[in-house]
Formats: sequence, structure tokens, C-alpha cells
Amino acid sequence: MLPVTATLLRHRHRLRHLRHHIRLKSTSPSPPPHYHLPLNHPTYLIWSANTSLGKTLVSTGISASFLLQPPSPASHSTKLLYLKPLQTGFPSDSDSRFVFSKLDSLSLRLRVPLSVSNSVLRSSLPRSGIRENIGMCDLNFLEEKVVTGAAAELSCKTLYAWEAAISPHLAAERENAPVEDSDVLKMVEQCLREEMECGNKTNLLCLVETAGGVASPGPSGSLQCDLYRPLRLPGVLVGDGRLGGISGTIAAYESLKLRGYDVAAVVFEDHGLVNEVPLTSYLRNKVPVLVLPPAPKDPSDGLIEWFVESDGVFKALKEVMVSAYLERVKRLNGMAKQAGEVFWWPFTQHKLVPEETVTVIDSRCGENFSIYKASGNNSITQQFDACASWWTQGPDPAFQAELAREMGYTAARFGHVMFPENVYEPALKCAELLLDGVGKGLFCHILQALMGGLISFMHAGWASRVYFSDNGSTAIEIALKMAFRKFCVDHESLLNFSEGSEEKKHIVVKVLALRGSYHGDTLGAMEAQAPSPYTGFLQQPWYTGRGLFLDPPTVFLSNGAWNLSLPESFSEIAPEEYGTFSTRDEIFDKSRDTSILATIYSAYVSKQLQEYSGVTQSAHVGALIIEPVIHGAGGMHMVDPLFQRVLVNECRTRKIPVIFDEVFTGFWRLGVETTAELLGCKPDIACFAKLMTGGMIPLAVTLATDAVFDSFSGDSKLKALLHGHSYSAHAMGCATAAKAIEWFKDIETNHNLIPQGGILRELWDEELVQKISCHSVVQRVVVLGTLFALELKVDASNSGYASLYAKSLLEMLREDGIFMRPLGNVVYLMCGPCTSPEICRELLSKLYKRLGEFNRA
Amino acid sequence: MLPVTATLLRHRHRLRHLRHHIRLKSTSPSPPPHYHLPLNHPTYLIWSANTSLGKTLVSTGISASFLLQPPSPASHSTKLLYLKPLQTGFPSDSDSRFVFSKLDSLSLRLRVPLSVSNSVLRSSLPRSGIRENIGMCDLNFLEEKVVTGAAAELSCKTLYAWEAAISPHLAAERENAPVEDSDVLKMVEQCLREEMECGNKTNLLCLVETAGGVASPGPSGSLQCDLYRPLRLPGVLVGDGRLGGISGTIAAYESLKLRGYDVAAVVFEDHGLVNEVPLTSYLRNKVPVLVLPPAPKDPSDGLIEWFVESDGVFKALKEVMVSAYLERVKRLNGMAKQAGEVFWWPFTQHKLVPEETVTVIDSRCGENFSIYKASGNNSITQQFDACASWWTQGPDPAFQAELAREMGYTAARFGHVMFPENVYEPALKCAELLLDGVGKGLFCHILQALMGGLISFMHAGWASRVYFSDNGSTAIEIALKMAFRKFCVDHESLLNFSEGSEEKKHIVVKVLALRGSYHGDTLGAMEAQAPSPYTGFLQQPWYTGRGLFLDPPTVFLSNGAWNLSLPESFSEIAPEEYGTFSTRDEIFDKSRDTSILATIYSAYVSKQLQEYSGVTQSAHVGALIIEPVIHGAGGMHMVDPLFQRVLVNECRTRKIPVIFDEVFTGFWRLGVETTAELLGCKPDIACFAKLMTGGMIPLAVTLATDAVFDSFSGDSKLKALLHGHSYSAHAMGCATAAKAIEWFKDIETNHNLIPQGGILRELWDEELVQKISCHSVVQRVVVLGTLFALELKVDASNSGYASLYAKSLLEMLREDGIFMRPLGNVVYLMCGPCTSPEICRELLSKLYKRLGEFNRA
Repeated sequence: MLPVTATLLRHRHRLRHLRHHIRLKSTSPSPPPHYHLPLNHPTYLIWSANTSLGKTLVSTGISASFLLQPPSPASHSTKLLYLKPLQTGFPSDSDSRFVFSKLDSLSLRLRVPLSVSNSVLRSSLPRSGIRENIGMCDLNFLEEKVVTGAAAELSCKTLYAWEAAISPHLAAERENAPVEDSDVLKMVEQCLREEMECGNKTNLLCLVETAGGVASPGPSGSLQCDLYRPLRLPGVLVGDGRLGGISGTIAAYESLKLRGYDVAAVVFEDHGLVNEVPLTSYLRNKVPVLVLPPAPKDPSDGLIEWFVESDGVFKALKEVMVSAYLERVKRLNGMAKQAGEVFWWPFTQHKLVPEETVTVIDSRCGENFSIYKASGNNSITQQFDACASWWTQGPDPAFQAELAREMGYTAARFGHVMFPENVYEPALKCAELLLDGVGKGLFCHILQALMGGLISFMHAGWASRVYFSDNGSTAIEIALKMAFRKFCVDHESLLNFSEGSEEKKHIVVKVLALRGSYHGDTLGAMEAQAPSPYTGFLQQPWYTGRGLFLDPPTVFLSNGAWNLSLPESFSEIAPEEYGTFSTRDEIFDKSRDTSILATIYSAYVSKQLQEYSGVTQSAHVGALIIEPVIHGAGGMHMVDPLFQRVLVNECRTRKIPVIFDEVFTGFWRLGVETTAELLGCKPDIACFAKLMTGGMIPLAVTLATDAVFDSFSGDSKLKALLHGHSYSAHAMGCATAAKAIEWFKDIETNHNLIPQGGILRELWDEELVQKISCHSVVQRVVVLGTLFALELKVDASNSGYASLYAKSLLEMLREDGIFMRPLGNVVYLMCGPCTSPEICRELLSKLYKRLGEFNRA
Repeated sequence: MLPVTATLLRHRHRLRHLRHHIRLKSTSPSPPPHYHLPLNHPTYLIWSANTSLGKTLVSTGISASFLLQPPSPASHSTKLLYLKPLQTGFPSDSDSRFVFSKLDSLSLRLRVPLSVSNSVLRSSLPRSGIRENIGMCDLNFLEEKVVTGAAAELSCKTLYAWEAAISPHLAAERENAPVEDSDVLKMVEQCLREEMECGNKTNLLCLVETAGGVASPGPSGSLQCDLYRPLRLPGVLVGDGRLGGISGTIAAYESLKLRGYDVAAVVFEDHGLVNEVPLTSYLRNKVPVLVLPPAPKDPSDGLIEWFVESDGVFKALKEVMVSAYLERVKRLNGMAKQAGEVFWWPFTQHKLVPEETVTVIDSRCGENFSIYKASGNNSITQQFDACASWWTQGPDPAFQAELAREMGYTAARFGHVMFPENVYEPALKCAELLLDGVGKGLFCHILQALMGGLISFMHAGWASRVYFSDNGSTAIEIALKMAFRKFCVDHESLLNFSEGSEEKKHIVVKVLALRGSYHGDTLGAMEAQAPSPYTGFLQQPWYTGRGLFLDPPTVFLSNGAWNLSLPESFSEIAPEEYGTFSTRDEIFDKSRDTSILATIYSAYVSKQLQEYSGVTQSAHVGALIIEPVIHGAGGMHMVDPLFQRVLVNECRTRKIPVIFDEVFTGFWRLGVETTAELLGCKPDIACFAKLMTGGMIPLAVTLATDAVFDSFSGDSKLKALLHGHSYSAHAMGCATAAKAIEWFKDIETNHNLIPQGGILRELWDEELVQKISCHSVVQRVVVLGTLFALELKVDASNSGYASLYAKSLLEMLREDGIFMRPLGNVVYLMCGPCTSPEICRELLSKLYKRLGEFNRA
């Protein structure tokens, strides 16, 4: 190669690189379609460990063994659909034509009548008379041979064909004929549906043959194993019988599994190296391995003899495929019933959940569930997880795939290793990222630049220690223990506290908390909550409610305007002293600190604290605990941030430690990494969980200041914080958390980040939000970050947690492909930090439409 | 191929298959060695995506760029060690000879003086004069060229060579020259140590070149990526630049990551297909991709020109390798200090943990930690995790690898999906396995056959519902809520209970529990425990201790005999009424139910319950909670199972629900899947966690009977059990739990299972156990299942949880490669359900030896 050419080539590579690079990163501009695949006939992807291993020979063999049976007495018609979604080197190479012509020859040879067809739907071929490529166009080529009276039929289809005999991503580029991933999938789905829905009685098998190896790029540059993932069709892997083929086959198998695929069988051509021995050993009890006889070096005889010779293996393969399909469907059909018999679902009255309302989730891909529906025709259909699976979810499909790789790696490298007095990379990295992120308020200056008065409060890193536990509830119990100790140390004289004396029975410490806030289900966390349906004697006889609970002022959007609602205790205040807000930003504006309302709030809190300590000399408020800005489980109420800031300041002047419960609100749920940013003040202790691991597995942390940490320092172990769980700081959780923290705040991976960072763009279409807030069935709307919530207008009998009022709305939305789950009469939609505003708009507009029907119902 | 030959071949395959099959499954008979690898010079594994991609060319190129520099003024001597552990096709193929001769030629051409040597240590070559292979023998072949004054030196070594040019597993078999995995590793370790320890000043780089692809089998049949895993050396992956090479390279990379390897760079030979574009895109921000110019088709020119042309790429590669090494060491060196600054370890007084005592865990492989030691020469050394990372661990290396694949698959297929009213495969399968296993007592009949009187109690499946949560503590809180509700429903009249009435303030329900038992750290779980160091006002000001706490009789081994120790309340009973036991089995013998002691126990419990309800008319014992057989965190005390059985019976007659806390004891920890088997009675509710997921991630379950479940049934959601955590029944945890449940009770995967199933063989050498129980420093021994524990004799000032008495023993054992962590003056060793008795014997004998030194200290 001449140096100049080489340089040019390199240069071109770099350009290409850049283009692919960007393409692979960006999410599609339009919402991805929701796929709906019938499951009433077996359908398989044919994968290959490498190129040229005979995928098409295998497809042909399966087709022959399926179609060229002596006609059965049941006289069912038999049909095989063969799809080749991506074909390069066309027309000289055409796998669908190969299958078509081989089956035609075999049917003649075996004297089984067979109708065959082959079509090519779209291609980049130059039109006749035109020399240049003009991109991907309809070709609608069809060749067929109809045999009258044939009970069997083969339909072969190439969906997209390019001329150059190179990888699809290169051919698409060279021929200026790109195809989006979603278009490939839509086309595959459409062909499969057409075939499956046209008649249930046909004995049908569908094959979708991929191009190249499992991780070979498709036309957009996406790897094919990623491209086809939303459909998650089961697969057959064509392995490699040559030297080195054991490794290639196992590696390809693992890449498929690492993307959540099921593989029904591995089949490969024998090269005399007994590769099946180690392969069978590796796949023991999981996947059968089948060996084909060596294909003739010279295929001039048309390979017909080889197919005949291989018939036994292909028969076995076909049976494996059919029985794996039948087993899958049988299992899916039985799951709802079985679940109702063995599960004890949390927060669920089983008597109200008949079998037919149980949702069978076959998989998830990014924000979407793939749901099995048995009613009518069996099918797999997609629903957007709009409750974000109890507010834990963040990943889009690309991030889910990345997390899967991270989980596999971490499990293999660490599994779990114990934490105390030890250090290992995932825990350390996670702790560093937490202190540098939610423990710091890194983006304050940028936020301030962007949002003006909203954030005028600059805080340096407040947290210096990370305490790991398993979930929000345990993080809160730990936070309370920290706060109380700190309070005791700070108020030593008040409590007449002396080290070593454990007799403090006469002293009672309680929390200051807001009514309607929720901090978890274990007893300690519950004690920090005001009485509610969760805390009655029948639920938790040990609950007493150890707090001073205040009613908070709330803000909400109604009829297009943001309003402040004050609780009864403020009834003497005239509305003109507070009124409404012209924008949501105004609510967060720090200039409100000097308003009359701030003074009123302050006086109110002071009075409450004073009155409380007057009531019982021995009872002390030892901690403030709040959910900043939004009360989640309490019904998606937005608390006036000014009130919470006043609370924090009042407690701080009294040396009462402040706990932020960010289990729900943290990590971009409300559009910022930590709601301390929104509130404009810092805690002494803060709890995070849920979305922290990107929505993969449980992990929680309690962050604390140095001062809090120091209150546990001493010469005896007994002075240390004696609380821990077996899997404290488990490597798996820490690794996913570290990945998630980085992913969500990297503008290369999270396209919702405003480029200067620190805040998400507005995800919910403002016009639709306004319209919904004016809707006659809507009481109030709250919208912030990834959350859109509304409360339905109800009379008293229908309100509250146990209300079933929203049930019909839920059912309608699920039909629309939205998995919604209400909190009584509060309905919400929740997306991930990376979900595109286009998807959110689609969700909102479906909701808006259904609200109209709900009204008429 | 003739049919007969084909049949014969198939037959041979089957035989081979069988042999490999067994070989791959069985664990090595002798304990695997503990590896100790210096880390003071960079060392890399050279991997390849497939065979024939030029691994050896890359090794040669790296060697050249490292060695053939103009001598630096610092005049450090430079050395490269090239190891080829497995060579087939020898002697005509010899990669070490290739590197040796190419470097010699290049040094001449570039005029850089270089000493070179090539040696072959062991080979299956027929000795001169002997025609047959006689297995693997020392060959000790050496060729060298010493250049006086050369500052650079290349040492090439082939460790094992076979004659046939086929995969090592086939060559080893054909030439009757097998090599165990551990021998390969020991030899690699030894060569690396020799080189590294001979002088710190040398500028040294070590390459270990694998054979074939990443997952190609080694001589034992183990895949090479599994074989080398205990050393977890970082790697360079030689990719594939050909058509299909993108897929092969990515798949190979993923197989390496899925085994916990780090890959520093991907390098491949250009074939004009710009494979680096998608590869760079895929590996973005993780791994650099380097492209080598096409190698000449005809290598008759000796490839020298190609190496010269490629020098820039190899220089870049070498720099990547060196800088990745330096970064790794820098990070490892800083981790202990950084940990001390950002972590808040549970149950740890930070003041007592200086930086130098922090353990830096680089990875784990099965039961072993790989620990980084900075003192003296940097090194990675292995320690057996003898505290099973807070009693969570179960996997051996094979199971860890299997779990890693399962985690990757589950993350990709499901991530996490929400649980209530939904069903998905991992949760359903896990629930089914639980009900069919620990919820059933499946092996009772077998146990009875095996152990005679030990288990005479046949129970059918008692549990019918599975409630998922996150850890033992939450499982207990849920269990308590279940039990209290059941109690209230059963004692409606007593409590004057009427539905809807929530005013039960005057009624108090408490638990019956044993002093010294431990049930978790959240408040509800703590309330069920007797006062302890964990429950003081300074630790948890909200603790009150809501229980009737009884002192339990305990059993232990001392001076070779099992003794019963009765608490003070039984002081009037003469020793001849109970005495000692001749065997441990006798303790569990159900015939004791008719003994005088049983009557005494029964009367005692009756009296306690009666007295208690006499004290406070409104207080009722609403639940019994016990840790069956062993009190774990309370100090590894074995409670007399007869006493616990009596407790259960007394409660059952009073309709007090019985909770078994099997968080520590469950899943083979004590040699049986559930300790209900040992105790010979069944609970109404049982909690499991820790080992349930195989020791991978947190998950807990509370199992319950139908009767318990029914007490939450009603028309209102408010009557349901309103307790749940975000990640309830998370797919990841359920999937690993399902795998673990199956793995541990499959005799094909768990070789410790007594063939008829249901019970583990004795893991701890009986003679050593006896000897230790007679040791002068030992107070008592408890040994059961995977647990061996002893209490050191101390005076009162040194006993208890905060005691540092065992510190010096801990330090000695860690030097022996045993990561032990005492509970005050109680020292224990814990293995996994699959750990071989040989390993356990080794641990015990090290402990025994150190006890002697501890005594003299």
C-alpha cells in the first residue's frame, strides 16, 4: 500500500469513525415503535458464530425437514417463512433465493409437492437505465412456483438488499442507502404478523436469518445482537467446527446470553475435530449440540446429497425448536395462575387480583416491558413502564446492555466480598462518585447561570462519609441512628449525658417530620412517619409514631397556574400574602426567603418546636427528616420548598441534625442529581437508593458530614455505629451505581442533560401539561424532572390510598401500551433520566386522550 | 464418510464426551494452591479472538518495541519474559522459538545488542530411541545467545509442549500427557516469580501467550479463560480484521469480561475492512483499538520489514500496557488510605483501623480473595474467605463463573421489573424452588434412612407463600407483621378484636425469644432481641426490647465430648438427669422427646408463659422467634434442639405463631438445606437470606403457611400486608437464588452431597476437631455443616463482642492465607457448601498450629 493511499484511507476511516460514533450514541429522534408479535407459531433467529459457517445451509435444512414430510393424515397445511432481513452482495448473493431454489430441487427429488416463492422487498440496486445508486428503494421482486394441491409451502423474503459484498454498515454507507434499526424491526414484525395472523390452522415455522456473526454490525452500525434485542426472539446458533471453533462458538453464545437471548440449540458442521465434546460439556443441561456431516468441498452437485445425508440431524434440530417453543408457551400460559398460588405480593390484596389481571412479563428492554398476552392469539407486546417499577428505573436499552456487561464482569471478578475494614474498586469508586456528586452539589454554579435566582445558594461538598445498606428503609434507620447520636453529643448537658451510662430510659428523642412524607416500611422508618393506613395496629402493632408531625404547605398546577395551598394551621393568613406563581421556577426562587411568608413559616415552626418541648420535659426533637420537594408515596405532593428550607434553618440553629430522604427524589428523578440543589440548602445526613443503581439491584447509602461521623469515634468498638447488613456495599450494587452515576451525568450518554450539565431539559410537553391541568376530571398536576402526576377529582369516599377509582383509566392506558399503576386516585407517569421528550409527549397525549374517555365513562 | 466409520467416530466421541464431561465437573482432589504473584512489573496475558490471528506476531512486536530501544542514559537493564504455557504441534511449531529467533534477527538488523534465550520445560515428545509417547516429561531444552554488554535480554519459555498440531485437550489425550490446570498455573506463577524476585531494578515486562481463542480448551478440557482466571492477569486481545472479525472480536472481548478480566488494548491486523470503526465505537472510553498494517501473504522475507513498519503501533501498544499497569498499581497503593477517608464501615470503630490494616481486595475467585499487598514488594496473594463474607458465601470458582453468566443474562433480559400483581420467570422459578425445598423438607425420608433416629419426623410441605424482601432484617420485620396478624385473628375474642377498629393501644403484643439470638439491625428486628451491646440508648434510643427473653440450654464440644450446659434457671436439676452425649447425632435424636429433660423443659416454658401473661393483663406473646440450632451473631452457640422443639410445641398448642429465622442457618450452612430438618419440627413462618443467592447479591424471603396468608385476606386493600421494598423480588436476586438452590442440591455440581441427597458429608476432619476441642486455649467448639467455631478461654475482661483478644490469632491466620474475622473471643472458619473436605482440613490444621503459637504468645 502506498503511503499516500494509506493516509487517505486512515483519514477516511476517521471520518467514518466519527459518523458511526455519533450514530451509535444518539437515540432515535422519533419514539421507538411498540412491537407486537404473535406467539402462536415458533419463530427463531438463526445466528452464527462467524461469517461463512453455513447459516443458510442450516436454514435450508430446517426448512426441508419441516416441509418435505410425507403429507400427514391430519392434512394440516404446512408453511415455512424464511426471512433474510439484511442481504449484501445482492443480487449475486441471495440467501433467500438459495433456500428457495434448494427447497424446490429437494421437493422434486423427494417427490413431495411444494409451492415455493422468493421475494425481495427493498434494495439499493440501481434502477434500470440509471447508473448511480439512489438509496434504498422498493424493489418488490417476486418469483414463485405454485404447485396445485401441495400441502406445503415455502415463502422466502429478503427485506433489505445492498449490492456490495461487504458488511451492511459499510454497504449502506457506500450505496447511500441507510436503514434505521427500527425500520428493520418494523419490517420483520410486519412480515411475521402477516403470516401468523392469516390463519391459525396452518402448521407454521418462521426463520429469521441474521447476517455475519452475532455481533456483526447492521446497516446503522448497531451490532445485530443489539439491533434485534427488542423482539428477543429465541435463536439457533450455528457454531464453528473448525480449529478455534470451540472458542468462537462459546464466545458467540455468551454474547447472545449477555443480551438476554435464549438459544434453543447449537449446530455446526463437523470438521473432524470433535468440537462437540467441549461444547456439550460447556452447555450441559442447557442447550443441545448437534453435529452436521462435513459439507462437500465442491458444492457443484448442488449439495442435494448432503441435505439428504443430514436429514436426521435437521429433524432432531427441528424437533428441538418446536418443543422449546411449545414449552415456552406452556410455561407462559401457566404463569399467571401459578403466580397467584405461590406469590405473596407486597401491598396487594390478593382477593382483588384475579388470574386474568396478572401481568406476565417476558422481559424488559430499556423502558419497555415485553408482556405476554394469552387472550385471543398468544402474543408478546410492549408496554412502557410508566411507574418506573416503583420509581427505580433509569436505563434506556443501550444503558441496560451496558449494565448487563458490568454485572457479568463484576460477578466474575468479585461476586460479593465483605466490606468492613476492606476496600475494593467498586465500593471505593461508588463512594468517591457519591461524595463528588450528590454529596457535593457540583453543578451549582452552572445551575445558577442557567436558572438565575432559582439556585443562588452555593454549597461546597457537605458529605464526607458513605454508609452502605440495602434499601431506602435501612438507609433511613441508619440515618436516624446517626442523627440521634449527633444530637446526644451536641446536647450532652441538656440530656445530662455521660459516657458509659446507658440508663437513658427517661429521655425520649423523636423526629420532626411532615405529615404525608414516607420513609420506608421497617419499624424504625415507620416510626418517623405520621399515622397512615400503613401504620395501624393490624399492620404494625409496634408502631407508635415517634415524631412531631407538621402539615406542610403544598404547591400544584391547576387550570394552568401554580398555586400554593396552606394547611389549616395557617388559616388566618390572607391569600394575598402568598397567592399564585407565574412559573414553576418562581416557586424555587431564593428571593422568597425575604418574603412575609418566610417569616410566617419561620414563626410557625418556632412555635411548634417550643410548644412540643413544653409538653414533655423529657422529649426532645432529635432529628428533622424530610423528603425534599416531593412527597412520593404520600401521593406525589409538591411541598413548598420555602417551607422546607425554613424548617432546615430552624433546626440547624437549634443543633437538630437534618436528614434528607432522597430515596425517591435523588439521582435525576426530579431533574437534578440531588434535590438539595432545588431546595438550596444542605443536610447533615442524606439517604439515596432506588435509581442509584440505574434501576438494576437494591443498594442504598446514607451520606453524612464529618461532624456526624465524629460523634461515633472513640476508643471502644461499642461506640461505633453497630448496624450493618450482610451484603453491605456489595460489589454488584456498587459497580452498577458507579456506572449509573457516570452515565446519567455524561452528556455523551444522557442526551437530556442541558449541555452545560447539571439539569435535565423539560421532558413533559408544556402545552399538554397545561391542557391536562385544565381538564375537568383533574384536581391538580405536579410535574418536575422525570415525574408527571395528577390527582383525579373524587368525592371523599373514593380518595386515598385504597381507592380503586383510577382502575378503568389504568386499563385503558395499558391497552395503549402504557404500564401505569396509580396511587389511589393519583395517577402518574414516570420516565428515565435519558428518556426522550418525544416518548414523554406520546405518553402524555395518550393520557390526555384517555382522560376524556374516563370523563365520559 | 462411510457409515461405519461415521458410527465408530460417533461412538468414540461419546466416550470422549463422557470422559471430558466428568473431568470438567469434578473438582480437583487436592486443595488448589494459593497463588502469590509479585506485581512490581507489568505482566500481560496475550489473548486472541480466534486461532491464527497473529498472537505471536503481536508478542514479537511488543518484545521488539520494548527491548530494541536505543540504550537509555539511565542504563537500566531491560528484560522481557515471554511465556508460552501450552504449545501444540511441537517441535515444528514453537511460538517461543519464533519470538526468540525474530528478536534475534531484529536486534541484528537494528543494531541493538540483545541477549536471547529459548527454553522448553516439559514435553510429551517421545524420547530418543523410544517410539511411543510416555506422557509429559521434563525436556529442559535450552538454546541461548548471550551478547556481552547487551543491556537488553529476552527470555522465551515454553512450559508444556505436545506433538500433535491440534487443541491441547486433544493432544494431551492422544499423547497420554495430561496436565492439571493447577500445574499450569503453578508453573506460570513460578516462572513469573523467579523473574520478578531476582531484581527490582530491571525494567521488566512479562507476556504470557495463550493458545488458540479465548475459550479454547486447555489440556484438562477447561477453557483457557477459566483456566487462567485465578491469576486474573490483565490482557491484550488480538482481534480479527477480516470479514466477520468485528463479531468475533467483540464476542471474545465479552467472554473475557464475563470472567472478570481486564483488557488493556485490542490490536488487530488490517484487512482493509475498517473493522476498527465499529470496534472503537463499541469500546469507546474503555479500551484503545490499535490497527497493524497487513502482514505480507508470503512471509518468506522473514517478516522483518513488517515488524519495522509496525513499530509505531507496537510502541503505542507497549505504552498502553505500561501505563495501564502503572495506573493499576497507583490505584491499588492509594486504596487503603482513600477507603479510610470516605467509607463508614458498619460495625467498625474507625479509630481502631489504621491504614495498614485495611485489606485491599483485588478480586475473588470462588472461596479465595485475591489481596493486594503493598508492603515490601507489591504483590497479589490469595486468602481463603473463612468468614464467608459475613456468612453469605457459597460459590466455588465454577459456580461463580456460572452465576456471572446468569447475572449478565438476567440483567440483559429483565434488569429489574416490578413485582406486585406481576409474574416473571426468575421470581416464579425461585418461589417454586423455595416451596419445593426449604418450604417442604423434601429429603426427610432420605435423611431418616441415613441418620436413623435423628430425623424421625416426616413433614409435608408446610409453606405455601413466598414474600420477597431485601435482607434478613426486612424478612424478620415482615415475619413479625405476619405473625402478629395471625395471632390477632386467632385470638380475636381474647383481644376483643373487631374488624375495622384500629384502637388497640391498650393491647401489647410481644415476642418470645431466646437470649443471645440475633435477628437483624432494623428497629423491628432489634425489638425482638434481648438487650445487648447493639441495643443501648447510644446505639438505638428507640429500642425497648419487646419480648419475653429466655436463657437457652446450649451444647458444645469440649475435651472431645459433647456437653449440655443449662442456664441458671435450671440450677436445681442434677447433672445425671442430662449429662453428656456420646455423639453429635445423639443431640438431635428425637427419642429425647420422651426424656425427663423434655418434661423439665416443657414445664419451664409453660411456667414462663404463664407468669408473663400474669404480670400484664394486656401483654400477650404474639409470636415465637428462634434461630434454629445455632445462634450466629450471638457467638456461635449451639442451642439444645430439644429445647427449641419443646418451645415450638408449647407455642403451637397456644396458637402462638412460630417464626424460624434461617437467615444464617439456611441453605446448607449447617449441612442441611433447612434446619427445620435438624430440629424436626416445622414453623409457620421462616426467613431466609444470605447464602440463598449463592452469595452474590442481597435478597430475602419470608415463607408462610396458607393459614398465615389467609389472615390478610379481605375485601379491602388496607387489610393486605402493606410492606414492600422497591426491589421486591428483583429479577437479578431471584435468578441467582434459583441457580444456587439448584446448584447446591445437585449431586453433579455439589460433590459434598451424600449421594442419596439431602445432607452434606462431614467437612471438618474429625480427628483435628477432637484435638482442637482438647486444646488448652479452647473453651468450647461447635462444628456443624460448613461451620467450625471455637471460643477462646478468656477472663471476663476479654470476653464479649468488643473483645480484641483474638487479634494476634487473626493476624497469624491471615499470614497463612486465611481471611478470618472473629466475633470477639469466638473464632470461626466457614466454607461453602461445595468446598472440599481437603480444603477444610488444611484450614483446620493451620488453625490448630496457630493455636499453639497463640498459647505461647
